[in-house]
Amino acid sequence: MRYRLYYWPEIQGRGEFVRLALEDAGAAYDDVARSKAGMAEMMAVMNGKGGQHPPFAPPFLEAGKLVVAQVANILFFLGPRLKLAPRDEAGRLWLHQLQLTVTDFVKEIHDTHHPIAGSLYYDDQKTEAKRFTHYFLKDRAPKYLGYFERVLASGGPYLLGRRLSYGDLSLFQLVAGLRYAFPAAMQRIERKLPRVVAVHDKVAARPRIQAYLASKRRLPFNEWGIFRHYAELDS
Amino acid sequence: MRYRLYYWPEIQGRGEFVRLALEDAGAAYDDVARSKAGMAEMMAVMNGKGGQHPPFAPPFLEAGKLVVAQVANILFFLGPRLKLAPRDEAGRLWLHQLQLTVTDFVKEIHDTHHPIAGSLYYDDQKTEAKRFTHYFLKDRAPKYLGYFERVLASGGPYLLGRRLSYGDLSLFQLVAGLRYAFPAAMQRIERKLPRVVAVHDKVAARPRIQAYLASKRRLPFNEWGIFRHYAELDS
Repeated sequence: MRYRLYYWPEIQGRGEFVRLALEDAGAAYDDVARSKAGMAEMMAVMNGKGGQHPPFAPPFLEAGKLVVAQVANILFFLGPRLKLAPRDEAGRLWLHQLQLTVTDFVKEIHDTHHPIAGSLYYDDQKTEAKRFTHYFLKDRAPKYLGYFERVLASGGPYLLGRRLSYGDLSLFQLVAGLRYAFPAAMQRIERKLPRVVAVHDKVAARPRIQAYLASKRRLPFNEWGIFRHYAELDS
Repeated sequence: MRYRLYYWPEIQGRGEFVRLALEDAGAAYDDVARSKAGMAEMMAVMNGKGGQHPPFAPPFLEAGKLVVAQVANILFFLGPRLKLAPRDEAGRLWLHQLQLTVTDFVKEIHDTHHPIAGSLYYDDQKTEAKRFTHYFLKDRAPKYLGYFERVLASGGPYLLGRRLSYGDLSLFQLVAGLRYAFPAAMQRIERKLPRVVAVHDKVAARPRIQAYLASKRRLPFNEWGIFRHYAELDS
């Protein structure tokens, strides 16, 4: 099965959580919107081309006739197929629950620079962004990351125990992205997260992930994506 | 199977999306935290009682030995068991995708009164709430609801076609809640949503839902939940 991933071509964004799973598994896939005419193809699927179910927003994945949207849903679908999830129902639901907590966290990370409206520029909501980020770095980021630390402490070294899952790849991306966006705050926050940092390091050392991160397929972090570095927000 | 639902006892909140599914199916369940000593039981599960997987936040559902958290995950689990979801993988994933879009929408609805931090009072973020809600009512609510209208227009009368699913129960709750919170704005927004409103009406007329809405089990909307009425936000 060759997968077709559709996502905005200029950012890691939410699509990156899917890319990391595909890359770690060595799966064959096209990053459609990054190819010539790919954006037009993406828009056609968004508009319900050929009677397919229209997604609300990218990313979405085409697998044969199936179109699956929402990062956590895509990973739920891919998990067992890429051997990045258990096959039993209880294990899949628990991993999915963790991934949905990642989803919630990602939305709040996004809101550090866009607390008022996605349709406005950052500069037009900078005052609110500063206030939001203050509470984000003080309360929310430590709470979410502390939760994952607690899950790891009850088993480990990975979220599900001995075997890596797509949840660990997402945890890697959270740490990498937060370090990019908030280097000063993360130095402080990470002190209480040895197990989370260990997952980050283990994932970064996996041969396929290493190769991916060194390739052009890995887009650099920038100020259009989810994780943005604005020095004035980092405390 | 008698289910045990855990959620904050004083609000409809996110728990209501699960309650509606249990009620429509006539399932046997306890709304644990609303019983005597129930809050202590809820906190025990949150803290990982008996080696169970700890949820990040309520609501969560206990089904035998299984603990499932995150509304969309709970509904994914319950769906086929309550005959409120198809059994085939493609159908379940599509319904789950719609439910995850409901989840995203609910978070933005919450942020109309809490755009800065959940730890602050509404009064301490009223200025930002006004600005957030302006864009929410102008762009976001019409976009989300318009998406569901489009899905209904491509089939209908329910989200999946001829058969009602838990997604329709959630759509009912969205309309009911938004009408409570933003009566003036919703009157305007609803004009373009005949199919969404028809789903609301069909759900409200289902005997078990009717009985539930008239019972004490249905908590009233109030200013502690997701859907809050603050006249100054409704335009």
